[in-house]
Amino acid sequence: MKLATIKNSTRDGQLVVVSRDLATAVAVTQIAPTMQAALELWPEVQSPLNEISERLNAGREFGAFAFDPVNCMAPLPRAHQFVDASAFLNHGDILERAYKVSVKKMPGIPVLVQRQSDAFLGPCDDYPFPTESDDADFEGEFAAILGDVPMGTRAEDAEGHIRLLTFLNDVSMRAHMLRELGMGFGFIQTKPATVFAPVAVTPDELGAAWRGGRIHHDLRITRNGAWFGHPNGREMDFSFGELIGHLAYNRRLGAGTVLGTGTVSNKAYLQVGSACLAEQRAAEMITHGEARTSFIRFGERLRFEVLDSQGQSVFGAIDHQMVQALGM
Amino acid sequence: MKLATIKNSTRDGQLVVVSRDLATAVAVTQIAPTMQAALELWPEVQSPLNEISERLNAGREFGAFAFDPVNCMAPLPRAHQFVDASAFLNHGDILERAYKVSVKKMPGIPVLVQRQSDAFLGPCDDYPFPTESDDADFEGEFAAILGDVPMGTRAEDAEGHIRLLTFLNDVSMRAHMLRELGMGFGFIQTKPATVFAPVAVTPDELGAAWRGGRIHHDLRITRNGAWFGHPNGREMDFSFGELIGHLAYNRRLGAGTVLGTGTVSNKAYLQVGSACLAEQRAAEMITHGEARTSFIRFGERLRFEVLDSQGQSVFGAIDHQMVQALGM
Repeated sequence: MKLATIKNSTRDGQLVVVSRDLATAVAVTQIAPTMQAALELWPEVQSPLNEISERLNAGREFGAFAFDPVNCMAPLPRAHQFVDASAFLNHGDILERAYKVSVKKMPGIPVLVQRQSDAFLGPCDDYPFPTESDDADFEGEFAAILGDVPMGTRAEDAEGHIRLLTFLNDVSMRAHMLRELGMGFGFIQTKPATVFAPVAVTPDELGAAWRGGRIHHDLRITRNGAWFGHPNGREMDFSFGELIGHLAYNRRLGAGTVLGTGTVSNKAYLQVGSACLAEQRAAEMITHGEARTSFIRFGERLRFEVLDSQGQSVFGAIDHQMVQALGM
Repeated sequence: MKLATIKNSTRDGQLVVVSRDLATAVAVTQIAPTMQAALELWPEVQSPLNEISERLNAGREFGAFAFDPVNCMAPLPRAHQFVDASAFLNHGDILERAYKVSVKKMPGIPVLVQRQSDAFLGPCDDYPFPTESDDADFEGEFAAILGDVPMGTRAEDAEGHIRLLTFLNDVSMRAHMLRELGMGFGFIQTKPATVFAPVAVTPDELGAAWRGGRIHHDLRITRNGAWFGHPNGREMDFSFGELIGHLAYNRRLGAGTVLGTGTVSNKAYLQVGSACLAEQRAAEMITHGEARTSFIRFGERLRFEVLDSQGQSVFGAIDHQMVQALGM
C-alpha cells in the first residue's frame, strides 16, 4: 500500500491512497482524514485502506484522480517526533578523515539526534533559505514512520512497529555545523526544514528490497539535472530495528515518530557517488587536497528518486528548487 | 487566563479553562477541543476563551467543576516541537567547574537542543524508568508555548509570539550524559519523557513577574517533602525572545512549539539551592571534594511549584513519584 498527503486548507492535509504506479490516488477521509490519524488507528484502518489500495491498483476505485506530487505535502506534514540517525558509518568516516575531526562513537551504539518536526516540506515545494553563505547542502536519506512503540521494545521485536518507509532530503547548512556539533547539543541552525518524498509505502511494497531492516535500493540524486550519486541503502551499519531498540530503551515512542537513516553512503563512493555535497567535498579533499564541489546557490534544483528492479518509481520523486527567503 | 488539559480517552485530552485560584475549571470544547487546536486558532479563540475565564473567576460560569491536577495531562500532551535551552549559564558553569569539562559556547549565542515531544507526562503521573543505575535526576525549568513564528523573526519582535508560560521537570538520566554530549548530537537516552506543570498561563497572568522576557518567580522544589531549592527565573542569561530569535533564523516555528529555559540556576546557589541534583552534586564536589547527594531511587517523590507574591500557586504543582518500569 502507498500513502500520501495532499495539500488542502489544513496543516495536516488530506490522506490519500496512491496506486502502485503512482498514476492515481483516492481520498480516504471516511477511514482516516490524515496520516497521523491513520498511524494512531493503524490496527483498525490497515485492512480497509488495503482494500481501497487493491481496488485502486485494479482500476476499480470510484473517485480516483490523477496523482500529482506537486500537490503533495510530506506524507506526514508534521510529526510529534523526528529522530535522525547516522547509520551509515561510512559517511561519517569520510568526513572525519577529510576534516581531521573525530566523533567519539561507542561500538555497537548508534548515533541518533532529535530533530524538529513541526513543519516538514513537500517534495516539490520551494526551499527558502536566507543566505548562500550558510553553505547549503542536501542529505539523501531513507526513513521509517513508526506506530506506537512500547518502552523497552528490543531491536529484534522493533521492526513490526514500522508502518511505512520513505526517503527525505535532510537539508543542511554547513556553515553552522562545526559550531553546533562542537557544543554537543545537536543541530538548530544547521538543520532547518526537512523535505520528504511524496509517497510513503508499507514495507511489503518493497518485496525483496526490504530485508534485514534495510532498504536495498539505490537513492538516485541529480543536481540541476546532472547525475550526482546513487548510493544503496543496504550498507546501513545499524538496521531500523536496532535504531528503534536504542530509542525505546527508557521511553515509549508515539505513533507517527519519523526515523531517518542519516546520509546514505557506500564504501564504493568513488564509483556510486554520494548523497550529499559535504561527503563529495570530503572525498575531493582526500583525493585532490581541496574541495571542488560548491555548496548550493539560489535557484539550484535537486531531485531524488528510488526505482525498483522494473524501473518503477517506488516513492515518487523529491524535485525541488532552493530559493532565497523573501525579506531577509 | 489559565489553561489545562484533562485526561480523556484521546491522546490530546480535553482543553479546559482554569480559574485563577486553580479551584475550578470548565471544558471549552465548543471553542477549541484541544490545546493544540487553541494554539493554531489563537487569534480567533483568545477572546472567547478570555470571556469564559472572566466568568469562571467571577464564579458565574455554567458547567464549572472542581479542578484536580491528578486528572491533568501536560497542558500540551504532545507537541510538534520541543526545544530546550541552557539559558542559565550559571548552571553550566558550576557543572563545568566540578567535572572539569568545557562546553565550547560562543558569546551571545544561546545553547539550544531539539528534544522529543511525542509523549509528555502529566504533573502527577508516575514516572517509570528501567534502572536506578541510570542515575535519575530532575531539572526544574520554566517554559514558553509559542504560536506560529515566521522565519526570520528577530529577538525584539519574538515575545509577541509567546502564548503561554509554564514550568516543567526535564527528567535526566545522568549515566548517559557524558557519552551522548561527547558525540555532539544532543540527548537520546539521557532525556526520556518530560513532565509538565498542570496549568499554562498567558503572560499577563504573571503581572510584574513577567518582564524582560523572563519569569521573575522562584521555582520551589522539594524532594520527598524536604526543601531542595528555590532558584529564581530572573537570572536567565538569554530572554525567551532571544531564544526564539535564534531558533527562527532560518525556519518558521509551528504553533505549539514548546521552549524550555534549561535548569533554573542562580549565582547564590549556596543559599537558594539548585533545581537539579547534578548541580547540587557539583556544588558539593567544589565545596567538599565529593558529591554527597544521591541520584533518585525508585519510590522517591518530587514536587515543583511557583507561588506569586500573595502565596497563590500560579501553575499548580508537579507532584510525582519516580517508579520502576514494569517488566524491565
